Amino acid sequence: MKASCTQENLIKAISAVDKIVASNANLPILGNILFYIDQRRLKVSATNLEIGINFWIGAKIEKIGAITIPARILINFVSQLPKRRVDIEVFKNTLNIKCENHKASINGLPAKDFPIIPKIEEKEQITIRSDVLKQALSQVVSSVALDETRPEIAGVLISLSNDKIKFVGTDSYRLAEKTIKFKSEQELSFILPSRTVHEVIRILDQTEKQVKITLGENQIMFQSGWMNLVSRLTQGQYPDYEQIIPNKFKSEIIVSRSDFESVIKTTSLFAGQTSDVKLKISKTGTKAQVEVSAESSDVGKNTSFVDCAIKGVGVSLVLNSKYLLDGLKNINSEKISLKLNNSGSPVMIGPYSSAKNAEIDYLYLIMPIKA
Amino acid sequence: MKASCTQENLIKAISAVDKIVASNANLPILGNILFYIDQRRLKVSATNLEIGINFWIGAKIEKIGAITIPARILINFVSQLPKRRVDIEVFKNTLNIKCENHKASINGLPAKDFPIIPKIEEKEQITIRSDVLKQALSQVVSSVALDETRPEIAGVLISLSNDKIKFVGTDSYRLAEKTIKFKSEQELSFILPSRTVHEVIRILDQTEKQVKITLGENQIMFQSGWMNLVSRLTQGQYPDYEQIIPNKFKSEIIVSRSDFESVIKTTSLFAGQTSDVKLKISKTGTKAQVEVSAESSDVGKNTSFVDCAIKGVGVSLVLNSKYLLDGLKNINSEKISLKLNNSGSPVMIGPYSSAKNAEIDYLYLIMPIKA
Repeated sequence: MKASCTQENLIKAISAVDKIVASNANLPILGNILFYIDQRRLKVSATNLEIGINFWIGAKIEKIGAITIPARILINFVSQLPKRRVDIEVFKNTLNIKCENHKASINGLPAKDFPIIPKIEEKEQITIRSDVLKQALSQVVSSVALDETRPEIAGVLISLSNDKIKFVGTDSYRLAEKTIKFKSEQELSFILPSRTVHEVIRILDQTEKQVKITLGENQIMFQSGWMNLVSRLTQGQYPDYEQIIPNKFKSEIIVSRSDFESVIKTTSLFAGQTSDVKLKISKTGTKAQVEVSAESSDVGKNTSFVDCAIKGVGVSLVLNSKYLLDGLKNINSEKISLKLNNSGSPVMIGPYSSAKNAEIDYLYLIMPIKA
Repeated sequence: MKASCTQENLIKAISAVDKIVASNANLPILGNILFYIDQRRLKVSATNLEIGINFWIGAKIEKIGAITIPARILINFVSQLPKRRVDIEVFKNTLNIKCENHKASINGLPAKDFPIIPKIEEKEQITIRSDVLKQALSQVVSSVALDETRPEIAGVLISLSNDKIKFVGTDSYRLAEKTIKFKSEQELSFILPSRTVHEVIRILDQTEKQVKITLGENQIMFQSGWMNLVSRLTQGQYPDYEQIIPNKFKSEIIVSRSDFESVIKTTSLFAGQTSDVKLKISKTGTKAQVEVSAESSDVGKNTSFVDCAIKGVGVSLVLNSKYLLDGLKNINSEKISLKLNNSGSPVMIGPYSSAKNAEIDYLYLIMPIKA
């Protein structure tokens, strides 16, 4: 194996695949990055057995071949090299790297022992804009269940119907749903494990480039530019979440997102380990005020106020401040709407627009805590 | 106790003293910050028994008094408050804080249980510019011994003679010395514990403001603006370090600081746990090259080159790359000079100036490793 490429391309490829490399005492080769040279290009790959990432680099090829190299030393070394031509050559299980005034030999392991990143048996294909997909996944992934006892909710549900894609995350205490307009013949849904979601968010550009998504039986592939990511899909039935979203509310309050977030943050400092804060919405005509309070025997207590507009009646309830803050940070509008029924019913939070029939593309639902 | 001040002043004071607050299971009050109100001002203080910091704030005083409040909740809460007027009032062992739409009561502990930050019995006084003191301490503190088995070198030596101050740090493997021109009648020296050095660097402004240093028998006080810091001094005799600085060298090489640093960083990745890199300086006329190499059985090996100018003969030696990098990062000039004798003698590194009789205000000495 012998080839040349630029330092810039090489470090870009290594950085893209490096994050899923993990030290694994049973399978040390998973800590390595695969270099694979065919007639035309150099491929750089890593896998943790659940997710595999491949990155192709244009290179001047002198001899085909393959080797795997420990990721840590590779990324540290290549990132220190000058932005010049890099010559790589394999000699037995060693990779020789030359660049300007630097000459290294790094010990590797044979490529034949590296786990194969599977190819997809194509079932369906979707194409979507990179920035749109990245934003949608980011807005729901923080609501996903962290523990794997119910693997079906430890991932993001992606479901296509004829004119939209929905992205859903829930841990059964709160739920986030993002809707994107999307023309498609297909009607299908699948669950993407949260680790994969985080990797997809990380490697996608914040550009209008297209991402091609290929679905197989149990696997999925995201392709963008010179890179692809292959992951398993979560098997199982996603809960029928739509039934818990109320379709009628007794009250709606409209409040500045930043003011409300600030008041929740301040009060949550006094909420102790449960993170519970009490919201009391009191009404004077169409004007109203949210009183947010918390108390713990250790720390003390705090009450903060924020002005709001109200439609409907006043109401009191107790919410988990962490869930509330997670939701608020994913809403990009200046004003937000909180829709409520009573102290035992879920609260629906979303962006607020004064336009009639404004389409709301994001909703965040929190179950209140019994006070 | 009752007073008002601005949120900006309050958070500035709390942030300045907060860093030395530590949780201490035997003396929980050390995790608190003292508020002390006299007729004119509000004083905010913290101490870890070795270092104490006091910060005064201009305030509208209604009633004198004192209380201590847990630092964590205080800094988190006050930093979230709007930049407005803050009203504070003590009620029993609780501090009530009001600011705009926020109203908190934080549980505290009585001020009478807070350790007293001692006053200094003045022996000597020095005045020096804040930015100059900050830079001098920064350039030597990374060379100070980390473990306390020899407390006298676990601090920075500061010594005044009639026309200069010297700052020295050593851990017996390397030594840094910074010299500042300074007119003074006094001839004195003392050792500042490294923890104190780090705190002084942290709280000093990068401005031309003056810092007043007051020396007592076993203590020192730094005063700057509305703030002072009191610390114990290290007792003991600083080693007679000047005798180990060679005054003759067989070779001097002059090299670009950034190029040399880059080559050392790259090669040190291959140096294994000992961090040893080999320097081989070879000469062709007045031009020369430094070859830096390292090898470990785990990782592999690397050789990198950097061009340099030379006066004197070629030489080979082995150095600890971490010590070398620590020294290089404290030298602010584009070109540096390495002065050497042989593979067993200390190397002296410093800024290089082509001007004749240029005064060198910084030197860094490293003992080589026996190859």
